[in-house]
Amino acid sequence: MSISDEFAFIKDIQPNRLFHEDKVVGIGDDAALVSLEDGYEKIVCVDTMVEDVHFTRQTMAPFDIGYKALAANISDVAAMGGYPMYYLVSITIPKSWEPEELKEIYDGMKQLGDQYEMDLIGGDTTSGKTMVLSVFVIGKVENGKRLLRSNAKEDDVVFVSGTLGNAAGGLDILLHNRPVAYQSLVDKHQQPKPQVALGRILSNYGRVSLNDVSDGLASELLEIAEASQVDILINKETIPISDDLRDYNPDKALTWAMTGGEDFELVGSIPAADWGSLYEECMASGIKITKIGSVQSGQGQVFLKTDEGLQKLKKEGYNHFNRSKE
Amino acid sequence: MSISDEFAFIKDIQPNRLFHEDKVVGIGDDAALVSLEDGYEKIVCVDTMVEDVHFTRQTMAPFDIGYKALAANISDVAAMGGYPMYYLVSITIPKSWEPEELKEIYDGMKQLGDQYEMDLIGGDTTSGKTMVLSVFVIGKVENGKRLLRSNAKEDDVVFVSGTLGNAAGGLDILLHNRPVAYQSLVDKHQQPKPQVALGRILSNYGRVSLNDVSDGLASELLEIAEASQVDILINKETIPISDDLRDYNPDKALTWAMTGGEDFELVGSIPAADWGSLYEECMASGIKITKIGSVQSGQGQVFLKTDEGLQKLKKEGYNHFNRSKE
Repeated sequence: MSISDEFAFIKDIQPNRLFHEDKVVGIGDDAALVSLEDGYEKIVCVDTMVEDVHFTRQTMAPFDIGYKALAANISDVAAMGGYPMYYLVSITIPKSWEPEELKEIYDGMKQLGDQYEMDLIGGDTTSGKTMVLSVFVIGKVENGKRLLRSNAKEDDVVFVSGTLGNAAGGLDILLHNRPVAYQSLVDKHQQPKPQVALGRILSNYGRVSLNDVSDGLASELLEIAEASQVDILINKETIPISDDLRDYNPDKALTWAMTGGEDFELVGSIPAADWGSLYEECMASGIKITKIGSVQSGQGQVFLKTDEGLQKLKKEGYNHFNRSKE
Repeated sequence: MSISDEFAFIKDIQPNRLFHEDKVVGIGDDAALVSLEDGYEKIVCVDTMVEDVHFTRQTMAPFDIGYKALAANISDVAAMGGYPMYYLVSITIPKSWEPEELKEIYDGMKQLGDQYEMDLIGGDTTSGKTMVLSVFVIGKVENGKRLLRSNAKEDDVVFVSGTLGNAAGGLDILLHNRPVAYQSLVDKHQQPKPQVALGRILSNYGRVSLNDVSDGLASELLEIAEASQVDILINKETIPISDDLRDYNPDKALTWAMTGGEDFELVGSIPAADWGSLYEECMASGIKITKIGSVQSGQGQVFLKTDEGLQKLKKEGYNHFNRSKE
């Protein structure tokens, strides 16, 4: 893309209207200005996707790249119990990308952002050899309602939303050019849904520890256990796995669920006394939530209970395209 | 850098203490949370530096890369009249970079950030083929004090801080491996100083239009003229150029001053009635400020007055390493 194209492109991606028009000024100026209501804390996070590391042209359409980069950030806001409000985008563009493809990246962000009435309020456009997409999201949560990893306590119920491992299964299908008989898995890799509604429900409970599943269940639980200085025991039989994933690859389904990552479900803990009420509320809202274990006194370890006994889990994250070496 | 190095690296760059400790929670969680005093608008901006586009290993030490990436953002906050407070860093790291060099990038940010009591509150670390450094800065400005590009009006005095073109001259020295007899020019390219103090002084005046000189004086003035729907007339003889720059290359000094960019000085306009007071206040604070022209009624054009008459200026930005083709 040439520099003159770039000016046209920036005009092209600027939003015509803002959801939070009364709270934003200065777009197109040196920086954006946003005003805030009293009584809220501001949530800020950043997530970056790099070509050939987090995606390839084969596994993700431009629309999906934008969608997923914003989804990963919204998921971080959801994991704090908050609402997303604004985003800024820094994009590094190789010459090989066409303006139409770049527009699709922004369309992907816009489609997801519109669902949450999020405004694109700034960014930076640079050229470079590799496509790098950094999205910064600003959200808010009422004072006192934030949900931290360090909130877990002994005897809490450990829960997770949705089903796990689907995104990893979807990536496996894409990397091996398998016929797409399991579109739900591919969709989960390309256009994961952040769990903002569940985060908001959870923010109304007195004490909840929470993480989003970006790096795999084992890794997320270890972060909660370490931050809260507790142990967590989960039961293999209760890990929620979709029928599609079991059907696609029964041998790897559990591994993907435990270490696959990028499902962007929420995992956390809540006092046992609140579990019944939370479960009912989620059922009524059409949100799948599953009790998978409990919090115990300890020093930050996570154990998986299987028929063979207890297995201590390690921080095995999602190694993106390294998995293709399997 | 391997993944295990990466975990150690992230620990290494985490700040030991926070300037705004009472206002920040959740670092190391999914996102950072910051609380705000009432009566302020939040300023947000992002700036990205890409290897071989904005810098090379030859022209910038790792320390300088970090310093300058943060400086560019602080300059955007200064151009709104605000204080910088927090920063988040997304860094894409090629395998060829050593952990010590990466640490130096963060040291460069920290040295500058500490001057403004800024806290590093989050980020993302990814691998990739090219070094890409995106810095996201959050600042604040009192309600009603923001300084927008669209504030210029007929008969305003047009001013600029410091001297212009030094960063472009410094880059020229570095690209041609010239003996460094003009360290002030090289310093301006590698470690530019954002003009926060001047932005704060200006925020106390009733109406000021303001931009920072990131893309060159001509381009910045055109942005003000367009946003304010006025014309701007500047006088060639009054453009402030340093003795070092005139001495280094008398033929190119004016061109660099007009189109060089990355000086991160502030340029803007103020009612003529306020100019005397502003000039006195800047003198008293040791800030060089120069009247370079005036605002006239018009539709967004900028003219340079020379001995040969009026020259209409075009939006010629800073083309980074394209200039080496000159």
